[in-house]
Amino acid sequence: MPRNAFYAQSGGVTAVINASAAGVIETARKHKKHIGKVYAGRNGIIGALTEDLIDTSKESSANIRALMHTPGGAFGSARYKLKGVEKGGHEYERLIEVFKAHDIGYFFYNGGNDSADTCLKISQISETMGYPIIAVHVPKTVDNDLPITDTCPGFGSVAKYVATSMREAGLDVESMAKTSTKVFILEVMGRHAGWITAATGLAQSKPAEAPHILLFPEIPWNEEAFLARVEEMVKRYGFCAVGASEGLQDKDGRFLSESGLKDAFGHSQLGGVAPMLANLVQSRLKMKQHWAVADYLQRAARHIASKTDLEQSYAVGKAAVELAVKGMNSVMPTIVRLSSRPYRWKIGVAKLTDVANVEKKMPRDFITPDGFHITTKCRNYLSPLIGGEAFPPFENGLPVYVRLKNAPVKKKTRTDFKL
Amino acid sequence: MPRNAFYAQSGGVTAVINASAAGVIETARKHKKHIGKVYAGRNGIIGALTEDLIDTSKESSANIRALMHTPGGAFGSARYKLKGVEKGGHEYERLIEVFKAHDIGYFFYNGGNDSADTCLKISQISETMGYPIIAVHVPKTVDNDLPITDTCPGFGSVAKYVATSMREAGLDVESMAKTSTKVFILEVMGRHAGWITAATGLAQSKPAEAPHILLFPEIPWNEEAFLARVEEMVKRYGFCAVGASEGLQDKDGRFLSESGLKDAFGHSQLGGVAPMLANLVQSRLKMKQHWAVADYLQRAARHIASKTDLEQSYAVGKAAVELAVKGMNSVMPTIVRLSSRPYRWKIGVAKLTDVANVEKKMPRDFITPDGFHITTKCRNYLSPLIGGEAFPPFENGLPVYVRLKNAPVKKKTRTDFKL
Repeated sequence: MPRNAFYAQSGGVTAVINASAAGVIETARKHKKHIGKVYAGRNGIIGALTEDLIDTSKESSANIRALMHTPGGAFGSARYKLKGVEKGGHEYERLIEVFKAHDIGYFFYNGGNDSADTCLKISQISETMGYPIIAVHVPKTVDNDLPITDTCPGFGSVAKYVATSMREAGLDVESMAKTSTKVFILEVMGRHAGWITAATGLAQSKPAEAPHILLFPEIPWNEEAFLARVEEMVKRYGFCAVGASEGLQDKDGRFLSESGLKDAFGHSQLGGVAPMLANLVQSRLKMKQHWAVADYLQRAARHIASKTDLEQSYAVGKAAVELAVKGMNSVMPTIVRLSSRPYRWKIGVAKLTDVANVEKKMPRDFITPDGFHITTKCRNYLSPLIGGEAFPPFENGLPVYVRLKNAPVKKKTRTDFKL
Repeated sequence: MPRNAFYAQSGGVTAVINASAAGVIETARKHKKHIGKVYAGRNGIIGALTEDLIDTSKESSANIRALMHTPGGAFGSARYKLKGVEKGGHEYERLIEVFKAHDIGYFFYNGGNDSADTCLKISQISETMGYPIIAVHVPKTVDNDLPITDTCPGFGSVAKYVATSMREAGLDVESMAKTSTKVFILEVMGRHAGWITAATGLAQSKPAEAPHILLFPEIPWNEEAFLARVEEMVKRYGFCAVGASEGLQDKDGRFLSESGLKDAFGHSQLGGVAPMLANLVQSRLKMKQHWAVADYLQRAARHIASKTDLEQSYAVGKAAVELAVKGMNSVMPTIVRLSSRPYRWKIGVAKLTDVANVEKKMPRDFITPDGFHITTKCRNYLSPLIGGEAFPPFENGLPVYVRLKNAPVKKKTRTDFKL
C-alpha cells in the first residue's frame, strides 16, 4: 500500500530550491506504488507542527514544471529548530500525530546544515518512538558548507550571480576611475565560510581585472594590509574592485559589521561591511568609492541561475525519492565530481550521521598565501559550478514566476498546536 | 573632403552606452565621403584636452559589434565640466588646437544633462571662435531626466534590472517571512528624480506582491507614515518589500543619507538610505529586516539589459552620425513614442538649446496620491522600456565582454595640457 510523503523547505531559500521541489514531486508522481500524495509543509516544518499541509496533487504538471524557473520557496520556508528530545520530545510527538493522521511514510527535508540534523532526528523516530518513516535530506544551501557532497545546490547560482555582477561593475568602475570612482566594494553573503567571496573572484581573468582584492571570513581582517593593497592596485591598474564577505572578522573573531555605530536616533547601526570598508578607503586614502550590498538579490537571482546548479538541484530531489522508495532511510543524496575538465558528475549517497552538524570550510590552499585572492585550485573547483545558463521565460520584460495554488489539506488532528 | 570625427563618453556609464558607440562608429564607417576616422577620447573629454585620442579604425568590425553586449565605457568616461568661456576659454582654445591638428570636423558627445551643455558650447565654437565643427549630442543617462526625448538610453536597462531584482527578492522574503525576515529594502539610484524607484514598482502585478512601498525623492520623507505603512503591509500580506531612492530627502530637502553618523574611528558614515531605513524598522517595529544596495550593479547589468533600450541606444548613435553628415549642428537625436500598446517609436531631433540644463522630473500623476507607489499611467509609460531580452554571449558560465585595443593616435600638438 502506498503511503504519503511530506516535503518541506528549510532555512534560507535559493534561486533553485524549487527545482528540488519539482524533482521530489515529479519523481513521486512516477512511483505511485510506493508514494500516494506529496504534502508540502506550509512554511517548512511549521506546516507539519501546525498541521498546515499543502496538497501538491492539486497542482498541474505545468505548474510543478514551472518551479524549475521560480526562485524563493514556493511553499514557504522556516528558520525553526526542533527542540531536542531531551526537552520532552513534545514536538516529535506532535509530528508523529500529524504524520499518522495523514499516513505520511516519507519525509523529505530540503535544507542545509541545521536541517540535516533535524532530518536525522526524524529518521530515528522509527526506532526511538516506534513510528515507521523514511527520512531523506535534500541538500540545499548557498553557503556551500555541507560535507561529503562536492557542492551544495543553490551555491552555483549565487556564485554565477556574484561573479557576473563583479565583472560588470568592474568594467563600470574602470571606465569612471580617471576622474571619479577609484574603488568599488561588493559585499556578498557567507558569514562563516568564504565560498561566495571566492566565487566573486571568478570574474577576474587577468590581474588587471576586477576583483583585485577578496576579503574572506577565514582571513583575519588587517586594516593596514588592506589599505596598502588598495593603494597598490589603484596605482597599478587605475582602480581597485573588492569582493568582501559579510562575515569579515578581526583576529579575535569579532565581526566587523558589529560596528557599534549609532545613528541620529541613537539606534545601533546594523551591519554592512561594504559601507564600513568604503568609509575607510574614503577617509584614509581620500579616494572616491562606491559600494554595493547584494543581500537577497544574490540568492534570489533566478534570471542568472547556473544551469549546472539547476540540474543538480533537480537531481537531488529526484534521487531523494528514488532512495526513499528503495527503503533507504537517514541518508542524503550528494553530488559526486567525476572530473573537472570536462565537468562530469553523478549522484552519490551520504549517511545523515556523517552530514549533520559537520561544516565544510574553505581549504586554506584555495586562498592565495597573501590572503587576498583565490588560487588556481579554487578556480578549478568553482568554475564548473557556474556553467551554463537557464534563463526563465519573460513576459513584458520581466521574468514570469509561478505562484502555486497551495491548496490546504483538510485537518484531521483537531489539536491546536502552539509553536 | 572627409573630415575626422571625435566621439567621447561622459558622466556615469551604463549597460548599453557602448551600443551608442557602436552606432556612431559603424554608421561613420558607412559615410566615408563625409567622415574619415572616428577618434575616441580616452576618458571622455579629457582625451581631447590632453590629446589622448584612440584610433577606432584599428578595431575590427567584430570588436565594434561586440560593444553591443559590453557594459561600462569602452573608451573610458569622465566627470569633467569644461570651464566657461567667461573664465578665459582656455579649454575651448585647447580643444580647437587638438581638433585642428587632427582635422576633426564632427563632435559626438555621449552623455546626460551636463554633457548636453558642453556639447552645446562646442557646437557654438564655429560661430564664437571661428572653428568649423558640427556637434551632436548622443543621449545617455540612467537618470532618465533629459527633456524632449521620451526616454534616455541606459534607463530601460536599469529599470529592467531593478524590477527583476525586486520581483526575485520579493519571492525570497515572502517565503522567509513566517519565522524570519519580514521587511526587505532595496536602495536604487536616482538622486534627484524617482524614475528608477518607479521602475522598481513594475515588479508588482498584484497588491500582495513586492514592492509594497516605494520611497521617491519627490515625496518628502515622513517617518511615521512610512512605519505605519510597513506595519499595515506586514499585517495584510505577511511581509513588506520597499524600493527606496538613494536621494530620499526630508521636507527641507536634506538627504537622509547625510546622516551625521560617525563610525568607531570617528569618520563620518557615508550614505546608505537602505541601512538607515532597515535600522528604523528594526528598532521601531522590532521586525527582522534585510537590505540591499544595488549601486553600480544596476547600471552595469548588461546580462539583463532591455532589448528595447539596447536598440534605442544604438539608434541614437546611428542617428547622430546621419544628422551630422546632413550638416545638422547643435542637435540631439531623441526617442519619439508613437504608441504604447503596441510599443512603437522612432527617432526625432531636438535642438541642444532646448535640452541643455533642463531636467525632466517625474510627473506627480505618475505617483499615487499617498506617495507610496506608481500609478497605471506611470506603468504604461515604463513598461515598454524594459521590453525584450538581449543576453550577452557566455563562456564558462560568465558573460564575455570585449576589451578593445584602444590604440593611441600619434600626438601632433607637442603641447602638454594641464587639466
